[in-house]
Amino acid sequence: MQALGVKRVFSYTLGKETGVSAEQVRKDFSEYRIKGNQRGGYRVDELIREMESIFYQNGSQNIIVVGRGNIGSSLANYSNFIQRKINIVATFDMDPAKQRLRSEIPVYTIERLAEIIERFCVRTAIIAVPYMAAQEICDQLVKFGIEGIINFAPVILKVPDYIILNNVNLSDEIESVIYCVSQVDQLVPCK
Amino acid sequence: MQALGVKRVFSYTLGKETGVSAEQVRKDFSEYRIKGNQRGGYRVDELIREMESIFYQNGSQNIIVVGRGNIGSSLANYSNFIQRKINIVATFDMDPAKQRLRSEIPVYTIERLAEIIERFCVRTAIIAVPYMAAQEICDQLVKFGIEGIINFAPVILKVPDYIILNNVNLSDEIESVIYCVSQVDQLVPCK
Repeated sequence: MQALGVKRVFSYTLGKETGVSAEQVRKDFSEYRIKGNQRGGYRVDELIREMESIFYQNGSQNIIVVGRGNIGSSLANYSNFIQRKINIVATFDMDPAKQRLRSEIPVYTIERLAEIIERFCVRTAIIAVPYMAAQEICDQLVKFGIEGIINFAPVILKVPDYIILNNVNLSDEIESVIYCVSQVDQLVPCK
Repeated sequence: MQALGVKRVFSYTLGKETGVSAEQVRKDFSEYRIKGNQRGGYRVDELIREMESIFYQNGSQNIIVVGRGNIGSSLANYSNFIQRKINIVATFDMDPAKQRLRSEIPVYTIERLAEIIERFCVRTAIIAVPYMAAQEICDQLVKFGIEGIINFAPVILKVPDYIILNNVNLSDEIESVIYCVSQVDQLVPCK
């Protein structure tokens, strides 16, 4: 909106664009003391500034990716992260061939996990290794002080309670749509 | 479990492994008339057969991937889908260089969408194009009869009500963990 020259925006418009109700938009904003007014809505520049201060209160975040296969590489090359101030400082792989990859983001051996985590103050890691290796990598990450894990391996990881874990199972995401489509014929309700 | 020679399994064990309660496991199974017994649990071979018949009632599902960038290629190369009987029959890209990719799964021009969708009876498509192109591709897919869409572009797509849409925003998945980790210091509760 800012790029289009829009100066003010209403909760109704934001709700419509993001798929939530206008009430929810106002409620969320007021929780962070972001104020609009009924006549003029919210100022776009203020909204951007406030939201940046909420999400990036500590500047950009250094994260690592363990596993430099298809998914790991695709994350390492995903330019959208720069905008979001997500900074992938290193990737790791067991395969020596992967370690010789020409890439802007370096590929290290697993042995260097502890060293890199400490050097770059990394608190969040992405697991993108084959499922057989995922729990072991996860245990190492926890041991080396990682607090947040995004897991792309198709396995449910066991972590201590204080770890923030997000399992992203791409097959499940795709399969649930395929399943719902197949149900359409049978007139079974499916979200 | 079957590979390990396990013959019978209790709802408690399945719940523990999948992160839901034993009650939920029993409730879900009973909804599909899968019966266990209190003494012996569920038969593993029966469970597998029943679940395959639920999820793959129409055999393997042909799907397509539009966009052969990092995410599209990583999905096209993701071997886990074969097990799940998700069959990516074709990928599409605007870039002629991508169309010359050596790959097991062919890369076509966008112009051939309608033809391929019809030939392979495709009902579900994955959108993995840059966000500027996503809505236009989405509109075309709907026009050509696609009923289910998994969207990896970081944009909220508008679709008719009958379309089953799943938005998978990788930045959001990662950012939510980073945000929660940053909240830990401030002792603000975060799921």
